[in-house]
Amino acid sequence: MARPAASDQEPSGPQPGSVGLVETQTVELFTAGNPLVLDSGSTLAPVEVAFETYGTLADDRSNAVFICHALTGDAHAAGYHAGADRPGWWDSIVGPGKPIDTDRYFVVCPNLLGGCRGTTGPSSIDPDTGQPYGLRFPLFTVADLVRVHRALLSHLGISRVLAVIGGSLGGMQALQWALDAPNELAAAIPICATTRLSPQNIAFSAVARQAILSDESFHGGDYYATDERPDTGLSLARMMAHITYLSEESMRRKFGRRIQDREEPRFDFGVDFEVESYLQHQGASFLRRFDANSYLYLTRVMDYFDPFADPERAGPRLEAVRAAGTHFLVISFDTDWRFDTEHSREMVRTLGAAEVPVTSREVESPFGHDSFLLAIPDYHRTVGTFLRRLHEGGGVAGPTSGA
Amino acid sequence: MARPAASDQEPSGPQPGSVGLVETQTVELFTAGNPLVLDSGSTLAPVEVAFETYGTLADDRSNAVFICHALTGDAHAAGYHAGADRPGWWDSIVGPGKPIDTDRYFVVCPNLLGGCRGTTGPSSIDPDTGQPYGLRFPLFTVADLVRVHRALLSHLGISRVLAVIGGSLGGMQALQWALDAPNELAAAIPICATTRLSPQNIAFSAVARQAILSDESFHGGDYYATDERPDTGLSLARMMAHITYLSEESMRRKFGRRIQDREEPRFDFGVDFEVESYLQHQGASFLRRFDANSYLYLTRVMDYFDPFADPERAGPRLEAVRAAGTHFLVISFDTDWRFDTEHSREMVRTLGAAEVPVTSREVESPFGHDSFLLAIPDYHRTVGTFLRRLHEGGGVAGPTSGA
Repeated sequence: MARPAASDQEPSGPQPGSVGLVETQTVELFTAGNPLVLDSGSTLAPVEVAFETYGTLADDRSNAVFICHALTGDAHAAGYHAGADRPGWWDSIVGPGKPIDTDRYFVVCPNLLGGCRGTTGPSSIDPDTGQPYGLRFPLFTVADLVRVHRALLSHLGISRVLAVIGGSLGGMQALQWALDAPNELAAAIPICATTRLSPQNIAFSAVARQAILSDESFHGGDYYATDERPDTGLSLARMMAHITYLSEESMRRKFGRRIQDREEPRFDFGVDFEVESYLQHQGASFLRRFDANSYLYLTRVMDYFDPFADPERAGPRLEAVRAAGTHFLVISFDTDWRFDTEHSREMVRTLGAAEVPVTSREVESPFGHDSFLLAIPDYHRTVGTFLRRLHEGGGVAGPTSGA
Repeated sequence: MARPAASDQEPSGPQPGSVGLVETQTVELFTAGNPLVLDSGSTLAPVEVAFETYGTLADDRSNAVFICHALTGDAHAAGYHAGADRPGWWDSIVGPGKPIDTDRYFVVCPNLLGGCRGTTGPSSIDPDTGQPYGLRFPLFTVADLVRVHRALLSHLGISRVLAVIGGSLGGMQALQWALDAPNELAAAIPICATTRLSPQNIAFSAVARQAILSDESFHGGDYYATDERPDTGLSLARMMAHITYLSEESMRRKFGRRIQDREEPRFDFGVDFEVESYLQHQGASFLRRFDANSYLYLTRVMDYFDPFADPERAGPRLEAVRAAGTHFLVISFDTDWRFDTEHSREMVRTLGAAEVPVTSREVESPFGHDSFLLAIPDYHRTVGTFLRRLHEGGGVAGPTSGA
């Protein structure tokens, strides 16, 4: 049997410190008459976006915090859906009195373009064919993700947010947003993110995609009309990626070389070590909530992300960030080897060289890349203090000094 | 197109410094009347072993060096097979004047039990059924691999070798041999090896095996009789493992974020970055030389390896190693993250605590785990000097001081 995740042991229903019961909303942000124009020049319509909000928007609309989720996240960042006994994926940091304090801030979290949790993606119906897009969904960029976020913000009547925050791919969106529209955010908080994937990062994603693409049930991405799904490939992709989310140390602490459910190893090719059981559970449970085509698109968007590749283009944009006074809080974790601190340092160096105000912090945590999802005290304190000072300092008017 | 490996550019045929033309020999070491008795109690017969030798055995039989190969190696360590334009896998270190100097030593390298390059393994015919074993091949241990090595040595009329040397799984066999029969080797040279896999190590192998086991063409291991092979799974396994053999730095040097065969990315799910092309080439070319069932067995044998797990059993065995004077040279590489230096340090600590003579060296190399296959000067000098001193110091009589 699979080793239950820690959250399996949590009591049922909304807990103290939670935002309570929440619902995911959906809004159509782009229509045939007003399509989303992508970086590639392709257009896309309709584009529906699933999102949640927590807290109350201040009368002067100055207290919004925008959350961008990572590869496999969704709009349900905090609180509980009716009947659910697990909270949203970032409930540890979002809620009353928590670092992203819903007593102070109005928090917005949408599902990403290309996703499969309510926002238009490759599993959505292509109006031209009446069939799911599959691989006919256009390839998009992180800038395109941000375009959709900005349209959502506009729909909510908010012209400028206190901060855009996110881990991993979420942090890449925060950086991109600052470059694309620095006046729209007082601060960007990229957490264990990067300015560009290393070849090793790309390699892991390439093999994960290969597992999906070579699954006989993939049918060129048109599996929706069949009773098959590329479950083998998608679960392999998830298992492999999951290894990169944990540190060697956290795996040692969590599993060691313990044998699953018995005293002695059984010496076969089944599940024998606890870590094998855990990975199989991760692979299998992922199938219930994720679409293989979305996995392809959302890993590929990360591969191509490289906003500072062209110095002639990046220079003026960084100057605009500096002029806007957008403050960066760049956080990394010492045992993260998916996007290690060097990735964050490179971001800090580039921003710092352009005289963009940057606060950076490498947080000690044994939990690797997944640390950004966990309640690490030093990490939470850093985010909470930064946001509070920003808010109290007039926030959206633009702070000039860091934490 | 795939990026050619460096060795593709080498001129054809035997080169200066090579042992020249060689052939793989085969010998039947265990028969129905004298079967191999495995750790599990199972018996196996016949057991044929493919091996190569280089250099000349001294009259007093005191100059043998035994090479144990790693997961995907074979008996062809050095020199050239007739018509081949690439030498054996460890030709960089084995040859006249090289660290494993064939002008001085008699070098033996067999293919491992469970392999697929001439030695009995799961693709061999099971005499009970007349069909290939497949998954009916018994599971074996590193001690079983060593049993077969020792039988080969006995067949060659050698009772004691100067050194047993190997990288990765090869180094695990060197350690195991010292524990099982310390009087048979003057020295053991485990290179980028470990005393036991970490859960992260196991996790990578578990996902690789899962890729093979879940391939629709695997047919429960009985694919030999079909016209199918679990090629998708095996190439995924190889691609993933290959990422762990290279360091992040060597990937940066080798590929960076370069696009394959064009100026601009094509923005699709095909091969776009050079690192993707390289991995696909690694996956595809592996299929020509390796059997999926052997991959399962030879990764699983590593998972279970843990010779110091039981202190009560390990204590007397380490004392016997100390009494035999078996000298260890333990080498690791600073950028190896498959089996990092901490793995070697743990081995050194355990041996040192038992007063076994140990020389250890962490070699600087940007090439990660694969460094053991490369001509890193400091590494080669260390091995060459150690072996020469051992040999000149009366070698098989047992040295008392290290390099």
